[in-house]
This record gives sequence, C-alpha cells and structure tokens, in this order.
Amino acid sequence: MRLSCGLATIFVVFAVVLREQPVHAACGYANCPAGKSNMINVHLVPHSHDDVGWLKTVDQYYYGSRNSIQRAGVQYILDNVVQELLKDANRRFIYVESAFFFKWYNEQSADIKSKVKTLVNGGRLEFAGGAWSMNDEAAVHYQSVVDQFTIGLKVLQELFGTCGRPHVGWQIDPFGHSREMASLFAQMGFDGQFFARMDWLDKKERMNNMTAEMIWKASADLAERSELFTGLLYNHYSAPPSFCFDTLCSDEPIIDGDSYDNNVLERVNTFIEYIQNVTARYRSSHVLIPMGDDFNYQNAAINFKNMDKLIKYANERQSVGSKVNLFYSTPACYLKAIHQEPLTWPTKTQDFFPYSTDWHSYWTGYYSSRPTQKRFERDGNHFLQVTKQLTTLANLTAASVDDNLNQLRHAMGVMQHHDAITGTEKQHVAQDYDRLLTAAIESAQTNARLALQKLTNLTSGEFVSCLQLNISVCDFTKDGANQVVVTLFNPLARPSTQYVRVPVKNEAYIVTDDTGRVVQSDLLPVPSEVQALSFRSKRATHELVFSAYVEKLRSYYIKKRVNRRSVDDQTGVQLNGWEDENISEAKLKARPLDIQSRAEIVVKNSLVKLTFDGTGHLNQVEMNGVTENIRQDFYYYNGAAGNNAEFKNRSSGAYIFRPNGTEILIGNTVSFSVYEGAQVKEVHQRFNQWVSQVIRIYEGVNRVEFEWLVGPIPINDNIGKEVITRFNSTIKSNGVFYTDSNGREMLRRERNKREYFKPNMTEAVSGNYYPVTARIAIEDATKRIALLNDRAQGGSSLKDGALELMLHRRLLRDDAFGVGEALNETAFGQGLVARGKVYLVLGKVKDAPSRYERVEQQQIHLPFWKFFSSASKASNVKVPKVSAFDVAQNVHLLTLEPFGTKERLLRLEHIMDKTESASVTFNLRRIFDQLGGEEIRETTLDGSLSLSEMSRFKFQPEGSKIRKPEYYKSSHTPLSAKKKDSTSKFSIVLNPMQIRTFIIKWK
Amino acid sequence: MRLSCGLATIFVVFAVVLREQPVHAACGYANCPAGKSNMINVHLVPHSHDDVGWLKTVDQYYYGSRNSIQRAGVQYILDNVVQELLKDANRRFIYVESAFFFKWYNEQSADIKSKVKTLVNGGRLEFAGGAWSMNDEAAVHYQSVVDQFTIGLKVLQELFGTCGRPHVGWQIDPFGHSREMASLFAQMGFDGQFFARMDWLDKKERMNNMTAEMIWKASADLAERSELFTGLLYNHYSAPPSFCFDTLCSDEPIIDGDSYDNNVLERVNTFIEYIQNVTARYRSSHVLIPMGDDFNYQNAAINFKNMDKLIKYANERQSVGSKVNLFYSTPACYLKAIHQEPLTWPTKTQDFFPYSTDWHSYWTGYYSSRPTQKRFERDGNHFLQVTKQLTTLANLTAASVDDNLNQLRHAMGVMQHHDAITGTEKQHVAQDYDRLLTAAIESAQTNARLALQKLTNLTSGEFVSCLQLNISVCDFTKDGANQVVVTLFNPLARPSTQYVRVPVKNEAYIVTDDTGRVVQSDLLPVPSEVQALSFRSKRATHELVFSAYVEKLRSYYIKKRVNRRSVDDQTGVQLNGWEDENISEAKLKARPLDIQSRAEIVVKNSLVKLTFDGTGHLNQVEMNGVTENIRQDFYYYNGAAGNNAEFKNRSSGAYIFRPNGTEILIGNTVSFSVYEGAQVKEVHQRFNQWVSQVIRIYEGVNRVEFEWLVGPIPINDNIGKEVITRFNSTIKSNGVFYTDSNGREMLRRERNKREYFKPNMTEAVSGNYYPVTARIAIEDATKRIALLNDRAQGGSSLKDGALELMLHRRLLRDDAFGVGEALNETAFGQGLVARGKVYLVLGKVKDAPSRYERVEQQQIHLPFWKFFSSASKASNVKVPKVSAFDVAQNVHLLTLEPFGTKERLLRLEHIMDKTESASVTFNLRRIFDQLGGEEIRETTLDGSLSLSEMSRFKFQPEGSKIRKPEYYKSSHTPLSAKKKDSTSKFSIVLNPMQIRTFIIKWK
Repeated sequence: MRLSCGLATIFVVFAVVLREQPVHAACGYANCPAGKSNMINVHLVPHSHDDVGWLKTVDQYYYGSRNSIQRAGVQYILDNVVQELLKDANRRFIYVESAFFFKWYNEQSADIKSKVKTLVNGGRLEFAGGAWSMNDEAAVHYQSVVDQFTIGLKVLQELFGTCGRPHVGWQIDPFGHSREMASLFAQMGFDGQFFARMDWLDKKERMNNMTAEMIWKASADLAERSELFTGLLYNHYSAPPSFCFDTLCSDEPIIDGDSYDNNVLERVNTFIEYIQNVTARYRSSHVLIPMGDDFNYQNAAINFKNMDKLIKYANERQSVGSKVNLFYSTPACYLKAIHQEPLTWPTKTQDFFPYSTDWHSYWTGYYSSRPTQKRFERDGNHFLQVTKQLTTLANLTAASVDDNLNQLRHAMGVMQHHDAITGTEKQHVAQDYDRLLTAAIESAQTNARLALQKLTNLTSGEFVSCLQLNISVCDFTKDGANQVVVTLFNPLARPSTQYVRVPVKNEAYIVTDDTGRVVQSDLLPVPSEVQALSFRSKRATHELVFSAYVEKLRSYYIKKRVNRRSVDDQTGVQLNGWEDENISEAKLKARPLDIQSRAEIVVKNSLVKLTFDGTGHLNQVEMNGVTENIRQDFYYYNGAAGNNAEFKNRSSGAYIFRPNGTEILIGNTVSFSVYEGAQVKEVHQRFNQWVSQVIRIYEGVNRVEFEWLVGPIPINDNIGKEVITRFNSTIKSNGVFYTDSNGREMLRRERNKREYFKPNMTEAVSGNYYPVTARIAIEDATKRIALLNDRAQGGSSLKDGALELMLHRRLLRDDAFGVGEALNETAFGQGLVARGKVYLVLGKVKDAPSRYERVEQQQIHLPFWKFFSSASKASNVKVPKVSAFDVAQNVHLLTLEPFGTKERLLRLEHIMDKTESASVTFNLRRIFDQLGGEEIRETTLDGSLSLSEMSRFKFQPEGSKIRKPEYYKSSHTPLSAKKKDSTSKFSIVLNPMQIRTFIIKWK
Repeated sequence: MRLSCGLATIFVVFAVVLREQPVHAACGYANCPAGKSNMINVHLVPHSHDDVGWLKTVDQYYYGSRNSIQRAGVQYILDNVVQELLKDANRRFIYVESAFFFKWYNEQSADIKSKVKTLVNGGRLEFAGGAWSMNDEAAVHYQSVVDQFTIGLKVLQELFGTCGRPHVGWQIDPFGHSREMASLFAQMGFDGQFFARMDWLDKKERMNNMTAEMIWKASADLAERSELFTGLLYNHYSAPPSFCFDTLCSDEPIIDGDSYDNNVLERVNTFIEYIQNVTARYRSSHVLIPMGDDFNYQNAAINFKNMDKLIKYANERQSVGSKVNLFYSTPACYLKAIHQEPLTWPTKTQDFFPYSTDWHSYWTGYYSSRPTQKRFERDGNHFLQVTKQLTTLANLTAASVDDNLNQLRHAMGVMQHHDAITGTEKQHVAQDYDRLLTAAIESAQTNARLALQKLTNLTSGEFVSCLQLNISVCDFTKDGANQVVVTLFNPLARPSTQYVRVPVKNEAYIVTDDTGRVVQSDLLPVPSEVQALSFRSKRATHELVFSAYVEKLRSYYIKKRVNRRSVDDQTGVQLNGWEDENISEAKLKARPLDIQSRAEIVVKNSLVKLTFDGTGHLNQVEMNGVTENIRQDFYYYNGAAGNNAEFKNRSSGAYIFRPNGTEILIGNTVSFSVYEGAQVKEVHQRFNQWVSQVIRIYEGVNRVEFEWLVGPIPINDNIGKEVITRFNSTIKSNGVFYTDSNGREMLRRERNKREYFKPNMTEAVSGNYYPVTARIAIEDATKRIALLNDRAQGGSSLKDGALELMLHRRLLRDDAFGVGEALNETAFGQGLVARGKVYLVLGKVKDAPSRYERVEQQQIHLPFWKFFSSASKASNVKVPKVSAFDVAQNVHLLTLEPFGTKERLLRLEHIMDKTESASVTFNLRRIFDQLGGEEIRETTLDGSLSLSEMSRFKFQPEGSKIRKPEYYKSSHTPLSAKKKDSTSKFSIVLNPMQIRTFIIKWK
C-alpha cells in the first residue's frame, strides 16, 4: 500500500506539471498504449453501459435490487472494475454515467478513493461522456444537456483534475443522434464522439463505403467551433459475437488449461477473422472494439481474466506471422491513434434522425411517448434555472443550499437519460422519475424561498411553487387564490411582459402590483373537461388572468372582493362575471356562446383574428398581415399490433411509431364556447369525450395558443391509439419543413429524403417523423407557419401545407426493443390524461418571422415562475433588490448558477442564427459587478476547462492535403479579466448561435 | 505486500510451534471468532456448493463454459472469494471440493498462492470435507470414499500443513446419509459433520424435539472410534429466505445509502426474526447459518459487501437491546463453540436412508440410476487398486508415474461425487464422466505396464487391459485370444483361486501356466443375446474359462490349436466343442439343451445344485447343506409420470423411484439352454426380447452367479420402466432384512419402520428401498439368503422371504429435482443395454454364512485383474518377483499406494464384525521389509494426521453428567517404528471392522 501511495503522490505532482501542457498531451492521451506498426491494432475498450433508469429505477440499478427484473447492480460494477484494474496496469476501463459514478465514489473509503485516483491518473480508468447520464438526443433541450454535462464534468474535475476530463462523447445507446449534440460536444472541447445506433440503411451504406467515421460539421453557424469527429461502431456497442465474457452472457470463456475443452485455437481464429471483417470497413490500421454491453462488468474478474487470455493468445500468434495486435485501450486512445494517421474523412452536415432498424421499425414513437413526463421535465428545467439564478442572486452559500440545488441538478441530469425523457422506461420507473423530480423540486424550493425571503421584503413569505397549475390546481391557494401574493421570477436576461394565470374560485378578485396600483384582470372558467377530471374534483373552477411586467422579480397581490354574482336572465346559466362595474379592471367580459347555427364565428383581438367554421373547427388565421386558411384537427392513428418479427410485423410501442392504416378524424363537429375577457379570449372546444381544447389569444401577444386536453384514450376496442393535432394550410411547402435541433438551430427536412442514403419509405408516416423539441415550421415564398410546443414531441409535414404534432400515445403492445411493456399509461385508475400547449405563429416570410419565433420560444421555455405567499404576510411588499441583466438584444441568459462556493457560472447565448441576426458586442462589466465579480475567465461550454487551454483534434476532410496532426483552438481570444481591469477588457462579441461560458470568482 | 509477507512468515513459524499442541488448538480453531455471552451468536458461514459435475461437466463448471445450461464457473468463485477475503480479516469462507480447489490453485501465480496460504493460516479460508468431491453416501463403496478423502486431505496438507486440515464433514447435498460415512469421518479424526437433507418427517420430528444435532454412534463394532457429532442444518444449505445476496439470486441487497429504497430497518428485522425461529430449534446459544448455495460466490463481492452490511446493522441493534450477535464463522468454529457449552445431545445408531421429501418422493431411484456407470466406477476402483499396488510394488518413482496414478485417483474422486456415482447428472455429463474415467484408466495403464514389465520377465509385454470383458469384447485380442499371455494381478492381501474368462473365437485353445503346465479350460458360447448386441457384432463368440491360483501376480498362456469343428449330427447345429479328445484339458463339455418338455431340470456341481421348473425358472437351490425353494424372476415397475406437484404427483426419475402400480412379471416361460463344461455350468435363459440371463456355477465355488442382460427397455408404450430381479423363498424373515453400509457393516432394516420417526408409507415399494452397495440378506432361525452385487443398486425385501434388486431403469419424465432430464439413457441409437452379476449365497444360520459372504464380497469387488500381452513376446515367462502379503486371516489389504515419492501408504482392515470374528494380532515386519521400509507411523484413516496427534471433540450424550469439554484420542497406542527396531515393535492388533493406516518411509 505504501508503495502505491508513494506512486500516487509522485503522479499528482506530475499531473500538476502537465496542466501547463496542452490538454491533448496530458493524462489519458499520455498513457495511451502504443500500437505496433504494420499491424492491425485492435483497441479493446472495456465498458459498461449503465442506464440511469430503464427497466429498473436509478437506485434499483445502483444497488442491484429487483434483480428479478434485470440482473444489474452498478455498485458492484464499480467495486469490481476498480479491483480488476488494480491487478494489472495494462487493463483499461471507461466509465460514462456520472450519476452512478459519484454515488459510488462517495461511498468509498479513503483507501479506495486514493486507488481510484491512481487509476484515473494512469489513464486506466478513463471517463467518456462524463455527463450525469447518457442523454437522449431527440427529446432533450440543449439547456438541460449543457447543464448535465456541466455537473458531471465539474465533479470529475474537482475529484481528478485534468485527468478526469473526458475527451470523447460516448453516445452509444441513444436512438438517433442530433446535430446539436455534436455541436455541444465540440463546444465543450471534446475531440470526438462515438455511437452505435444509426438507421440500418445508412449504416449499411457507410459500411460499404468506409464512411462510418466522419467529420460532423455540426452547426450552420459555428463553423470549426462545432466540427466533431464522429464514429459509428461496427457491432452495436457490444463485444464481438461470441466474445461477451460477461456474467450476463453465455459465450464460451477462453479455456486454456489442460482440458479436453481447451478452445484457445478456435477462439483466437474466430476473433482474428472478426477483426479482419471490421478492418475492411474502416480507414485506419486501428480498430475500436467495445468489450461490454448493458450493465456488464458486474463480475469484472470474468471479463478481464478472459480478455487477458484472449490478448495473450492472439498476440502469441504474431510470432507465427499474425498481423493482429490486441491491447486494452479507450475510445480516446483510439481517437488519438487515428488522429496521428495521414487520413482524410468524409463530412456530414445534417443529423441522424429518424433512426430505423428495419423497414417497419422507425424509432419515432419515443419522440412523443409519455407526454406528461416530457412536460414535467420541462418544469424541472424551468425551476432549476429559476432556483440557480435565485441562489446566485441572493448570494446563498450555506452547504445545504448547494445540496438543495444539486438535488435538482442531479434529478434533471437523470431526466435527460435516454430512457427517461424518451418515455421508454417501464411504468414503475416513470413513477420513480416523477418522485425523484418532485422531491428535487421541493428541495430546490427551499433555496428559492430562502433567496426570495432575502431578495424581497416578504421576509417570512412561503414562496410556494404549484406544480399543477397546468390543470388550474394549487394546493397552497386551496385552488382559490384568496388573498395571496404572487411573486414572479423572470429567468430571462431581459424584462418581459407576460400574462399570468392563477386558479381561483368563482369570485371577484382585485389584483394590484408592487406599487399598489390595480392591474387589469380577467376571470375565466376552467374548461368543463378539466373540471370534470376525477382527480381534481372540487378544485378551482376559474382562472384569474392578468398581464405582468417583470424585469427580474416582482410581486402582485390578489385579493377577493365581496360581490354579488350574476346569472344570465335568459338562460339561467351562471355568468362568470360580476355586475359591480365600478371595479372595471377586474371585470370579466367573457361570455359563453352556444353555437347552434354553426355559422362562421370570429374571435379576434388587435393582433390576431381567428375564424371558425360551422363545424366548430378553426379554419382561418389572420395575423402579422397574413391571412391563411388554417384548419386544425385532431386525429388518431391506430397503433400497429404485430408480433415484432424483424422486417415484418413490428408493433407500435414506447420506441416505435407504426400506425396501422391512415389517421382517423376525431370529432366531425365540435361543441364550442367562446369566452371573451378584456385581455384574453378563449374558445373552448370539445371534439369528443376525450379530446378537448382551448384556443386562446391574448391582447398584445402575436401568437395563437392551443391548449389541448387528451385522454383517457379509449382502448375498449383493444386498439392502441396515437393522437395528433394537424394544421392544414395552403402553403406550398413542396415537401420541405423545418424542425429544431434540441431547441437551437433549425434543420431542413425533406419528405421521404435523407442526407446520405436512400431510405426505404415503407412506413411513409413514421418514417417522416422528426423530433420537435421546440418548433416545427413550413413556408413558401410568402408565408410561413410555425408551431411551437411546450415539450418534446414527434412531428412532421406529411403533405404540403400541413404540420402535425403527436400529442399522446396509448398502446397495447410492447415493441420488443427491451422495455417489455406496452406504453399504456394509467393514472387514477384510468388511462392517462395529458394537457399541453401548442402555439401557432403565422407570418410573412419577408418579415423573417423566425426571429420572432425565437423570442417566443424563449418565453415559452422559461416564462415567469410563480411563487405563492400568504397575503397576510405581505403588508409591505417593495421592489425587490434585483433588476434585469444588461445584455444586448438577442442575447439569452442561458445559465447563471453557483459554481462551487467561490465561483459563479454565466453562460450567454446569441439566440439568432446568421440568417436572422449579426454578431452582437456588449460589455460584461455591469453584470460582473452585479455578481460581485473579482475575476472572470472564459471556459469551454461545460465550464470545466479554460478556453485558452482547449486544443481539440482536428481531422482532415476528404480532399485535404494530408498534413501533420492539427488541433482546433479557440477561434477568439478568451475573456480573462479582473475587477481592477478596465471596463473595455470586459467587452465581448457573440456571433450568431454562439454560446460563451464564463466563470466569475466573487467575494 | 511486504507487510503481508512478513506476517505470513511469522505465522508459519507460529504454526510450526502449534503443531506441538493438540490439533484442536491450532489454526482454524485458534482463529475462531469469539461469540458474546448472553447473546444468540450467529455463525454466518459463507460457502459455495460446487458440484463436481451435474448439469454441466466438471470442466464446464470449472471454466464456466456452457453457461446457458447453468451459470456456474468455479474458477471465478475461487478467484473472487480470495480477493474478498483479503479485503477484511473478519471475513470467512469454507471450501469443500478439492477437485476444483487444486485445479484452481495450480493455475495461480506465486503471489496469489502466497496470499491463499495467509488466508488458510489465518482461518479465513477453511476447508470442510476436503475430499476430491462431496461424495454420495448411498452408492459409494467405502474403499473409494477413503481414497478420495486421502487424495484431498493429502494435497491440502502438503500445501497448507495443519491449517489445511478440515475439521468437519460438510455433506450438505447428498440425498441421504450412511452410517459408514459418519464412521469414516470419525476414523479420519474429524470433529463432526453437517448435512442438509433428511427425510422430511424425520426432520420435522427433530426440529420439534430439538434433536437436529446428535451424537452418531456410527458403528456397531468401533465404539468411540466411530462416534461423530452430526448436525442437520435448518434451511437446507441455503442462506435464510430473502438473504441470498448471490449473483444467482434476486433477493434484495442491503440498501443503506441515502435512498428512497433504504431497507436496513426491514432487512434487519426480518433477519433477527428468522434467527429467533432457528434458535428455538437448537440447543445452544450458537446457531449455524449457511450463507451460500449451489455455485454461489461467483461474484463474491456482492455476497460479502451485503453480509458486511447485514452484520454491521444487525449488531448495531445491540446498543438498543438486541441479543443477536452476527459474525463470519465456519462450521468448525460453530462446532468448537457448542463443544465448549455444557450441553448433552441425543444419539443415533442407524442411518438416514431412505430420504424422502414428500409422501410420494422417495429418493431411492438413484440407488440404481445409470447401472452401467455405476459398474464402470467399480472397474475404475478395481484398476486403481491394481495400479496403486503395482506402482508401489515395482518401486516406480518417475514424476509421470505419479501423474498417471493421480489422474485415475482424481477421476475416481470425481466419480464418487453425489451426481456422478448416483446417476443423477445430465446425459452429456455422464458421457463426460465415462470419457474422464476411460482416459484415466488408460493413463494408469501406463503405470501398470511399466510395473509389470519390471515385475515380470515379459519386459516388452503390452499388458493391455480390456474394459469390455463383461460383454466378451477385447480389442487387444481382436476378441479372439489367439496366442496371448494373460497376466493376472491379485489385489487382495492373500492368495486366491478364481476362474478366469477370456473372449475367444470358436476355436480350440490350450492354456498353460507360468510353469508350462497345461491348465484345464472350458470353452463356452457367449450368450446369443450378447452376441446379438448391434455394437459388438463380429466380436468374440466364445469365452475360454480356466481356474487360476494367484498369490499376487501370475501369467498364463493361451494358444490356439489347429482343430476340426464338430456339428451335431442330429440337429445340424454347430457344436461348441471339438472332437479332438486327446487334449482333454481344453475339451468342452457343455451342450445346448433345448427344453421342450419343460420338465424339471437340474444343473449341479459338487457344491451347488440348481433346479429349474418347467417354465424355465430357477425354483430351488441346494448348497451348504440347505435346500431352499428359491424362485427367481424378473419384473418391471411402470415409472410414475406425474406433474411433480409436491406431495401429490411426482414422476419417477433419476432421483426418485415411484412405481405406478404393482410390478409386472417378465416372461412367463423362459427359453432355456444349458452348457456344461468340466468346471463351469451355465444356464442361458431368455425371458423376453430384452431380458436374458446366464445362471452359472463353478466347480469349487460356493455361490450361484446370475449374469443378467437387460435392455433396451422398450418405451414404445410411452411408459418408463424399472427392471428388478426378485428372489422368493420360504424364509420367514418377518419384515427384517439386512443391507450393507457402503460395503462394510450390515444394517438391519425393518419393512415400514424407521429408527426415529413414524414414516408415511404411501409409497410402500420405494419407501422400503435401501441402497445395496454390496450385499442384501434375509434370514430366519435356520436359513439365510444373501445376494451380492457387482455395483450399487436399490434393493428391498418387500415380502417375507423375498429379496429384490433394481437392475435397470428407463424413464420418460424428469422428477423435477434439478437434473431437468428424464433418465432415458441411450447408446448406439437405442435404449441402453446393461449387463451385470448378482451372486446368491444360501446357508445355514448356524454356520454364520455372513463370514463366507464377506470373503466372497471381496473377491467380487477386487478379483484378479487381467492384462493381455502378445504371446510372441513371452517366450520366457517366469515367476514374477512379487508374492502375496503375509497378513492374518480376515485381514484385507485395503490400500497399498505410493504416498508421495518417499512414502507408502498401507491400510489394513479387519473385514469381519464382532459377531463374526475376534481381534487378530499379527506382525507387520515382513510387509514393512517387503516394502523397503525405513520408518513406519500410524495415522488417521486418511493418512494425513499422525494418529498420536488426533484429538477429536467428544460430545456428551443425554443423561451424562456435564463436564468440561472432552476429546477422543486414539484408543490404542499408535504404531511407530523404525527399521532398526525389534520385530516385536511391529506387532499390531486389528479389532473387528477396524482399519489401521500406516505410512511407511522407504528408501
């Protein structure tokens, strides 16, 4: 032990020295095994793919409980791998999921921790990916991806310094790959990424053409900043067939003893033959062979013992002429090896969606699976940004404050996992994610309360968050906001005006702002379909709506007025208004309109005009100077119920969207009510017993809001159903539509086409589905329609002029890709009911409506957060001590958070692309001072590496002259300044779509 | 590491010092964890039950191949357990099967070997049992049990010294327990034994009466020498329900982290509750809790991590009043703890057969399952004794010689395993056992050849062994023994005269002995049913039979004579004789007698007279002055074909014998031929297409030989069948019969009765079946019939006067006790055909025929071994240099073998019990000199412990006055002498049934 400790100490000193060197020369790379020249160098990469929840919950996986579901216990993987690595310095292992790693590491003794550090320093245990989880790439929002890499890489750096820093992305399991993810990797300073899943025809084509490895030009805006070497693995992420030495496999071990069963000759022959097949598909003399699979290495001794033997006996063949050279390695070492080679590579500019594995298996169902979970994750992100900012702004520093925030950071990291946000986990796991996220929000809520008590004069305010406001439920207000203070926090960088909705009883209220001024409010009924939801009976019947202007933080009072109620004299229907007209600002102007005649109905305000036809359907929208016949409908697809035979008869399931036949219209005629307030106008539509909607326009707001309510989807006909909403128009979109990539750049999609290969379009519907994380749009020469959504959904434009989004899915068959359950969500004893919003923006192409859409998109993603406190405690609510940040137009406050106790992380983003806006220049000095800054430095996107130290592998595209290995450095001079420096030193430029990350030391 | 090495060195010195102390104070016991007073002390015993073949072959289990059959790889168990033990000095593990342990140990690095020694020295890795395998107790012969303990304990001692010596038997899995096994344990110096399987009603009774632990008085002859503490485990040999932390289980781990799933409270509660239940059934304040199961600990980190937590959290409860104290321990340490307690124990004098697990599940099928395997194992033992003696007598010493012998020793150790000799393994495993044993015999054959080339003048003789002589097949002689030398080796201690049979062609031969004297021989036809066996077509048609007298080693010539063949003039049938009457000694006198008249037929010689009735059945035997109507028949039982529901509907299978209905007679009339030679008379009977028999009497031999041929058992009616032979007589046995215990003492059986409990006799046939390893007998006041057999079989006396033995079984259902296959043996594309011998001895009770039976039993078990050499090489065969040993009457040379290169092991046994003979005194000096002795010392039965050092725990029977802990020492003064000592010092006494073991150093 003493000898080891001595070595470790020496190494730490060495590592410190190395930090002065370029990163690519340190730690991992410095420790890479050398290949042999004139040989096929086989990089065996031991790894374990540890889902952060899937068939079991996160903790069930970690502890290895519920093993009857799946034999998986991550604690043992890490326990045993560390022991095995310690046995032999040649052995290597990569670890990916920080969620598991840190849970494990924190349980270890000082001795084991020290040994782990030795392993990391020696490149024997190397991190790949390193985020909290291996995130999905279709349904995630980039903000949450950046966050979860930030926490993962930060703790790795804290524990292991430079040596803990991953060099490559390892996105081996996500079901398709986004361009934005590649771009983020590049911005984080990664040298490359590897994955395993690609459309089977794409993969086939790339294997045939030696194009499985490429340079991904991952942004139309960021140029070299976003270029990333990307490699597709040969055989999924698995060991070669028959070479899975894991305790979960039943492949034959290497039997090298004095045994009748000795199989060394045969095993080595088989392996070498396999390597020759792989080599034929890749450009270099190095090949990357993953040696692992899901939850492998629980009994790592088996894996390493047999791999040791395989390496030994295969390499012994070299003495009789074999040209195959095996050694333990890592993806980073493989990447380093091929970076050294004089090779050029193909390029890629689009993304890898949709992913299909056979003619009938398009993995486009998960874009929409579990819609309420997908939405709740957005709530989690929303509140995380709010509490991170609040914790920072209030200068909270207690350790518990950090723990509270970390709990939500971690839960959100978990939610990004490719079986969480995707909805591809088992039902009990989904419930555990809900529990985890709820608990984490409650935990972060403590920070929010402490911060708000400090930042406002409401020093004993409760500042409660209500997580069911989407169905007009708030426990704190007893669903009737009598006498409450609503404190609004604006997580955006700049002031904003937004409408605020608060569940109330059918009473009269008066709303005043923090100056005591009465604010105009409308009272609207909660739709009868929402009120009828069994699990919210006797909750709020109405919502109070008012417009609020908030720089960063502001409180509003709501007080109940004693008042008479009115009843419509003619119908006897109780009117949602009061006759006390002298409180005009609280007066409700909405009235139910029972459309018997089915004549055309118009609902409009100063910006938007909606026309409904005689069947109750929207059929025309007029806004932004454009009038377009937009017909909105709901449909459902019947989910295919097959036997899951490959290439034949797949079922629609959690992963797969496979409609059986064409879509079926829901509701030929629509029952219909219109409520018109002073500021908000609502059309309440009911399509059938389980589909209803509110179409809503706010005064001064240039969009149409469609708040849908779908479910329980009936299955008494034993047919699963997948519900969409479709907007038809006359726009001549010519097969083209646009979808966002993880909420940032837009990608051009063309129906029935792919970038690299000719797709088989047997599944014409699901094969044209793409992830819509924030926006989908079509346009022609003059007009453009964009739909913004409130959660990730699958969407498409199956016909010119049409856009559709999948809202909800209920299926009765498993699709046989592992989850082992039909996606048949239930709650409260019935099929799950989901509610959500789609926003429509119609504009003139010449006005570049996309710019407006981007701004809207931000407000939808990060609206004001509402905190509720008792009005009794709020006798003296003053202007809070926080004002909006002083950032330039189009600049988004992507992140503001404590970064350890002495630092703060600030991330600013130019939200427009180069077609929408030019670069902006502005000065950070005021923000720096506002945050109590002492020093500021610029880092890679993740925050863990000084940008000046970044030096990424640059690979040469085909056609290049082959030179010596090159590296990407930061394309601008990183900001580095101290308090005493002149203000001019704080000036920064943000190019379109650029994100810049700063760490600010504060006192 | 250096520190560890230092400690190990210190320990070795210490261990040397300790060897001067009594054994029970050394190593394991010295390192036993101390319990706490006034607490329930819970000895958690980590163990892995590693079958030496069962569902997989030995090597498949060892290497972990074919894991799709069963997830089991013993190499990993040992790899990982050692690593886990090294992590914490409190951890303990016992290992049992030396077959696996040594295969593993030999593969280890010097570093690991050294660490293992440290663990063994510290009592952290302790051996229990320690034999080559965990032998069966029903079908094994004591000679092979002694052998397999000898090899196991010897290597343990060589590697680990005293610390490697097991203190307890650990027979946890065998399906019933023999008294002889307990006696052997006592004779080996063991302190006790534990097992898990006992008739369910017996167990129930013992749990109710706190009699699950007892003093087994395991011999009627050996008194204290055979007394052994015997403990029945509470819950099979498994961890408490829900506490199997193994990778093969799905019980919940201890979740003690900051987790929603934290289960420490519940898990500890459950465990403590269980312990309280166990405590209520046992007498002491200590309880033994096995923590393991079949092939557990492959991922030992899981087991130990969770047990660590269980111990920690359960013991933490002591601070709030819990009286339960958990710690890692071993069975020996448990035994030591209860030996220290002032307790008395019940006694037991019979055995634990048969074993049943419910009303319909008597584990009495395996007594007979795989009859050819059970026989082949006896051939293996036979040849092992022969080659051990030959290797010793020829003073062979080369390393390869030792390896050759070890291969057979090891294979025979494997064969004793409770899924090998039992026939309860899968078919492919049975084939592997055959392969293993065949290869081992071939290997040992090398020794035999070398020895015989040295011991005889036939210096280039082939000395080939023929393993298919039972069906008159010998490849060496091309099945026609033209011109060969037959060298006979007599493994018994004293000279013997036996008839020798050699397969030949239908020719005339002349046999001469080593003096050139012509020896009388008979030529008899191989029965037509044997000749018709498809797989031996064109093999020998006849056997040449002659009587040989051999002291230890002697050769006989067989030469073919040119001669005319004769044909029966009347029938045209070719006669098996020659007309050349002038070579009278080779003349055949046998003639086929076609019994048309079905009149009574008598076949007799000077000692025996057999009478057959008109249907061809034996119906009277006259010998030893007794005439008895003995009718012999073959029957079959239909095997039950149930659904294996417990207590209801079990199938007959490899383990279980469950007849469906009463037995069915085979062959109302029997076709019948009689062959009469000068010395041998044979009656060839054919009962049906698949059952035939030769009844044979030899001149001068006082027994009747029944050589049966059964199979292929037809299953075209889809009914499994179990074939027996039954001998009916008029003996008034009054429900009582006698069966041997592993070939040594006889046990009294009483139909429908048990020693301790009232059995449920729903299964009246199988519930009365007992293992017959060598002999079964009935008697009344005057007459006695004994049947001796040539392999282990199930047998019974279901009616007074009747004896039956089960010969062959073919079944179509699995009996659901794990093997997962029906016992439906096939070979050469059809149901397996088995051949074997049953010997009948009839006598007057007053003549004590049992004494004669014992002598016969030895000749049957260890007849002359035949070695074949080419006659051409044998021009000058002289008297070999070996003569018989000079032992007293009734003394058996149980073992003579090399014991390392410088020592020899000699085991002498008094083969009579105290009712049959008195003690014998004789002098070992001549044997000592014959073996080149320099020094001789006496040891425990296994040979690894000086008898003078033996000090076994003595437990007090109920009714004793409780004293301080007592110990058994050797009840006689152990022999210890040197070459220079006077002859008188070599005088020894052997009491009835006593075995004495000596190690002789030789030059």
